Formats: sequence, structure tokens, C-alpha cells
Amino acid sequence: MNNLVIQELESERQIYSAEIISIGTELLLGQIVNTNARDLACELSELGISNYYQAVVGDNPERMEAVIRQGLERSDLVIATGGLGPTEDDITMQICAKIAGTELVFNAEAAKWIRDRITRHHYVLTSNNWKQAMLPRETKILYNAAGTAPGALFQLDYAGKRRYLAVLPGPPLEMNTMFKRELKPWLCTMTRRHLQHLYIRTIGLGESRLTSMISDIIHDQGTVTIAPYAEDGEVVLRLSVMASAEQTIEELNEIFQPVLVQIKARLGEYIYSVENKTLPQIIVEQLSAQNARVCFAESCTAGLLSAELASIPGASRVFSGSMIVYANELKQSLLGVPAEILQYDGAVSEQCAIAMAEGIRSLLQTDYAVSVTGIAGPGGGTDSKPVGTVWIGLSEHSGTFARHFILRGERNRIRRIATLNALDLLRRQISAE
Amino acid sequence: MNNLVIQELESERQIYSAEIISIGTELLLGQIVNTNARDLACELSELGISNYYQAVVGDNPERMEAVIRQGLERSDLVIATGGLGPTEDDITMQICAKIAGTELVFNAEAAKWIRDRITRHHYVLTSNNWKQAMLPRETKILYNAAGTAPGALFQLDYAGKRRYLAVLPGPPLEMNTMFKRELKPWLCTMTRRHLQHLYIRTIGLGESRLTSMISDIIHDQGTVTIAPYAEDGEVVLRLSVMASAEQTIEELNEIFQPVLVQIKARLGEYIYSVENKTLPQIIVEQLSAQNARVCFAESCTAGLLSAELASIPGASRVFSGSMIVYANELKQSLLGVPAEILQYDGAVSEQCAIAMAEGIRSLLQTDYAVSVTGIAGPGGGTDSKPVGTVWIGLSEHSGTFARHFILRGERNRIRRIATLNALDLLRRQISAE
Repeated sequence: MNNLVIQELESERQIYSAEIISIGTELLLGQIVNTNARDLACELSELGISNYYQAVVGDNPERMEAVIRQGLERSDLVIATGGLGPTEDDITMQICAKIAGTELVFNAEAAKWIRDRITRHHYVLTSNNWKQAMLPRETKILYNAAGTAPGALFQLDYAGKRRYLAVLPGPPLEMNTMFKRELKPWLCTMTRRHLQHLYIRTIGLGESRLTSMISDIIHDQGTVTIAPYAEDGEVVLRLSVMASAEQTIEELNEIFQPVLVQIKARLGEYIYSVENKTLPQIIVEQLSAQNARVCFAESCTAGLLSAELASIPGASRVFSGSMIVYANELKQSLLGVPAEILQYDGAVSEQCAIAMAEGIRSLLQTDYAVSVTGIAGPGGGTDSKPVGTVWIGLSEHSGTFARHFILRGERNRIRRIATLNALDLLRRQISAE
Repeated sequence: MNNLVIQELESERQIYSAEIISIGTELLLGQIVNTNARDLACELSELGISNYYQAVVGDNPERMEAVIRQGLERSDLVIATGGLGPTEDDITMQICAKIAGTELVFNAEAAKWIRDRITRHHYVLTSNNWKQAMLPRETKILYNAAGTAPGALFQLDYAGKRRYLAVLPGPPLEMNTMFKRELKPWLCTMTRRHLQHLYIRTIGLGESRLTSMISDIIHDQGTVTIAPYAEDGEVVLRLSVMASAEQTIEELNEIFQPVLVQIKARLGEYIYSVENKTLPQIIVEQLSAQNARVCFAESCTAGLLSAELASIPGASRVFSGSMIVYANELKQSLLGVPAEILQYDGAVSEQCAIAMAEGIRSLLQTDYAVSVTGIAGPGGGTDSKPVGTVWIGLSEHSGTFARHFILRGERNRIRRIATLNALDLLRRQISAE
């Protein structure tokens, strides 16, 4: 590592804009989804650094160079990810060194790090691992705590402007770890403002319907900007304010407050969170606060509902367990759904959803129980019960009920949206207690 | 719809390259992940249309116009997605019309379609829905079978070159539906070649290790190109051949065959698929062929394993159900894990995994049963059982065993990789029968 370069990087110069360039043929062939761009964009947004452009390019030297150069023309910082692997088609470090006017040299310190890491994890050291120790001369090397490929941070004068070029590895775990440990602390020193957001998350209304319900508020937006966006099954309103480093959270909250009050008055129970928390997070918090437990009986969702709740650290405080009764005979033998219900009303019916919820709650002895039974397709639909028909049951001390849904889309979308609605039904019931 | 324009679009002109431009501030702020670019890239790849660039830009008119114009300079076709919503910041159609030298006019046919659709789905028609009926004059309109926003396909002469600009909506379901129904059939007539892939999917080897095991084969690649890429927990080898429309599948398979044989000889049991099938798909097929059934007992994965198998249509033929025994007392009361095991060996132990697998198999009377118990973190780790410790048990007629794993990463990565390894253990056992 070159101390002279680091000191220069720690200058007073600020970064206002950044561009994300993802490198990899697998992205251009659609084999993987670009979570790196999303993760970096999210980080930049929180740092108040504007991200106006993202690009994806392959391992072709000319095209890669052109895209990175264009990024350096329009943004203060370019973050390039991917193409640092040990194989011959990984050329990102080489191209970036060329753009920065330097060259790759064998870096003994990085080589030692790579060897230690591979030995420690009981991997086999292969000859191509040494390619990753070929690093730019006179650059800040970024260490990789989750893999073998080091990254780099270049400072360069580009067409008379001071620019920065950061190179991070492609595997998401390595990229995120390196960003958080090596790049973010430095970026925090390079920006004096940030975009403060407040997220109002809703479920149960379409985007058109929701925006028309608050169109005057959106139209009259001032300091607080309001942007609605649809996620699968939900609509989120993002309120944003450009905050200076001097403004306190309390001051910012005061700016948001009048808009928040207005929107709450219009959207009421459809709002499930104003803290950008997910439904499972909210449910785990609310159940913890009530010292209550929940269990599930799942058919068409087959574990998605349980898995969602268990994705939250500490879920074990409130979640006992579930039964996935995919085969109809298990609905009867394990949960005690009466044979008559299965025969006359069918496994996808109000009666079955209610019996499933009651059965699992009495078996697992929890405060709340939710059941899901439906037709996810592609087969199994009928005229009276088309694909997408879902019944969600909820049982608690005061009684049991079930709700009917008809969901659109293919099999796994139906399963996801059914899971979301089951979580929302539980959230509403817990909140009502 | 303008018949004159359609006839012209159906000319002999071919499309060799396409660029994907995703429009939306939510992408630049990192609030959503860009699945549209992945889905379109995948479709283009299958059509043999080269995708060298992808870009993301916000709802800013100047930047959007510049990015689309750059796309038209370097590629035969530009597909722009997003920004067709009913709100005022949705300006994509307007900008594209400007680039194509036309203007937006009220389209009565589209308006009728929007009204019918909203009425049919019992949504509430709002005044801003009419904005979506403002469509370019003299353009092919693309109908939206999954939402209200129509798309468009422009044919234009750009700097003396014939170019196409397709505009699709942003919500993934709408984008995919419109692409498949409206754009793809036309694109098929515009290309006479396609890239034929063969995917060799492996699990159990790191990328460096795997590539070094076949480095000579990769080095000697000829007509068949070989590209390794790491997915979370697996490594995929993509073999590709540029095929003409005249070549049959049999001819292409003969080209792949010698390379495939070589790679199979080296990687053996680590390969789980050469047909780009997922582990759950393969398991459902293999169990169906054996007329056998499976069930699961899940602790730390809490439903992920069951949900993965049930994501495959027809899973009900082979999957009976599962118990999620998140609370330790349920491991004992529901699955019959002896209290001594829980007390002396602990819930995360070989003995517990074996007892869980045996318990669920005897209860649900299936041919195979898999159990997963582990410490997903962030809490709960000890020196002897750190976070990431996972035991996976497998029970079948001839006996029961369990395997030990130590997985890296955060809570939900550990749960995902545990799920993958549980599926692979089951796959290996079924294959060995």
C-alpha cells in the first residue's frame, strides 16, 4: 500500500455524483440478476451521493474501457464491480490500471494475504490464484475479507477534473463486505450532505388508486419530495429531504411530520410501516411486545410464510413452528381437518382454512395461528375455483375466521403474494389487540 | 394501430444487437433490483441477439434522452423499460416519441382498452389513467395484457442507420407479458441465428478449484466456448455455440458432445445437471420416476427447503409435507427426538439431525426424509458450535445418516446454502438408488 497516495485521497475534495458499472458477461446473458448495482445504489443514496447512471458491460476490453471512461466524464466517482476473478477473461483490473495510467505489478503483500486466506479456509491453492496478486502500482489496495480478489481505489485527473475510480469484486458477498469495510469509511469523509428518506409502506391498494387518493399532496410537494413505487404486491411512498451534515434527526423529522400526518389521514390502515421495516420485522416486534407466539399451517405456500418470519433475527422468541400439509390426507391426519370438509367443501375452502388454523393452534399451543390453502397452479384450477384462489385463516383466543383472495400471475408469484397477504392479515390482527 | 407501419416492420431487415435501458429513480436509489434487465438479457441471448450494454437512468428528460440516443448509436434495437405509469414523473413515452420525431396523441382504442381492463378487474378508474392513453402517432402500439400502460415499437432512421426502439412498462409482470406476447414473435422474424447454450451445473467445488481442474479444456476451447460463473453456493459452466437457423438440435448436440464428455470425466459427481435444471426440478423428476415421496423436518431453514421443492409445478406428486420445529420442545413433542439428545448433544448435533429425519419419515410415511438443524445466527453461536454450523440428516429404508457443514455469511445466506446442500444430499441419495 502506498501511503503517499492515501494521504492525497484524504483531502478535502468532495464527491457529489457516482456511477455504478457492473462488469460481466453473465449479466449480459441474463444469467444472474444485478444485486450489486442495487446494493451500491442504496449505499450511495444514504450517503447523499447522486447516482444518475448505471451501466453493465462485458469482459470486452474496448467496450469496458469506453464505458468506464464515459463514467469518469460524467461523475466524480466510478465504482466498477466484477471481472477480478482468477480466470483469463477477468480483465477489469488491467483496464482500470490502463485508464489510470499505471500498470499491474506483482504485489507480495496481497499474495501473502491470498495464500493465508486459502490455507485458513482449507481451500486448495491453484496457480491461477496468483493472477489476483497482480495489482496496480501506486494505488490504494482494497482488501477482501470475504474472498481472494483484492480491489483498488484510483485517484486520477480526467480531462482536468479530479475523479475517483473504485474497483470491487463481483460476487455479492465480497463486493458488499469490501464496500462496507474499505470504501464506505472513506466515502463518509468525502461527502457533507445526504438524502434522508422516510418510507411509507402500504399493502392492499394498487399504485394508481393510491396515488389518486393523495394526488393533491403529491402535486403540492415542496421541500419533501414524494415518490410512489410499486413492489410486488405492495406500494411504497418514499419521502425525501436533502439534509446537510449539520441537521439533526429531530430537525429532519420535523420537516417530514406535516406531510406524514396528511398521508396517514388518507391511507390509514393500508399503511403498515413508516420506518421502512418489512412485514416480518413488524410482526416479530409486535409479537415480542405482546409476549405472544405464532405458528402456521401451510399448504400452497409450502414453507414460504414460515421462512419469511424466520428470516428475522430473533424470530425464535415468537415463532414456534409450522406444519406443511401439502398432501390432503395430512390436513386430516396431522391437523384434524374433518374428512367431510375435505370431501364436500374441498381443501381450498373457507371451512378448511379455518379448520387448519384451529388445528395447528391447538396442537402447537400458540396465541396466534395462520393457515394458507390455495391453488397455485399451473394445474388444479376449476371454473368455481380458478388458479389463484387462496383462503387464509387466522385463529386466536377470541375465535377464527378466513379471508378469500384471487391472485394473478404464475405459480410462484401466487405463492409469494399469498404469503404477503397472510403476513398482513396477521399484522392487522395483532395491531387490533 | 397503423397497418402501414407494421408492414414496414415486417421487412427482411435483421437485428444483430440490442441494448437494454431501464428507467426509474427507484433503481438509482437502490430500492428495487433490476430483474427486467436480467429477464430481457436472457430472452435476447436465446434469440441470438448480442447484448453488449445495459444502462439505468432516472426520470430526468435530458439524461434519459442522451442514454437512449447513445443506445441507438451503438445497437440495432433499444429496449427501454419503465416510466409508463400514470404519474407525472413518468415521461418515457414522451421522450421516445420526441427521439422518433413524432408526438403523443390521444388514442381512443387504447383508452377503451384501459377502461375495459380497469372495469373487468374491479379497480377504480382514476383521472390519471387517461395519461396512459396518450400514445405516439404512427407507431406500433404494444398491448399490455397484465396492466394498463400500453407500450410502443418505433422504427427509425438514426444517423443513416435503420434502428428500432421498443418501449415496455416497468412492473416485471407487465414487462415480461408484453415482451413475450407482443415483441418476441416479431423479434423471431428479425434474427436468423441464435446462441445455443449448454449449462453444466455443479455443487460442492469453489470456482478457482473447479476451473483449475479443467484449465486445459478451457484453454483449448474452439467452436464451443466455455465460461464458468459462480452462483451462490454453486458453480455453473456455460458452453456456447453460435448456431444458424438451419442447424438442428441434433447437429448442435454433436458439437457439444466431445467437450461435455471431457468435463464430465473430470468433475463427475459434482455435476448435478447438464440441462440447466435446478436442483428442485431434478429431485421432483427423479422421485417421480421412482414413484417415491419425500418429507422434511426443518429447524434453521424454517420452510425454505419445503418451499424450494414446492416451487416446481407437480411437486405434489412427490412431496407430502413437512414439520418446521423451530422451538426445541417441538423437536421432542412432534418428532420424538429424545430429551437426552436435546440435553446432552444439543439441537444442533448429528444425533438430533438423525432423530429428526427418522421421526418425520416414520410420521409421514415417505420413502425419503431430510432434516436440517443449525445455527443461522447472528446469535446462538459458541466456540464448539459457531454460527454457520449445520447438520443435515437423511433417512430412507436402508438407514439414516447426517452430514456436517460449516457455512459462511449472514443469517439468511446460511439458511439458503443449508437449503442447497440439503437438496444436493437428497439428489445424491436418490441418484445412488
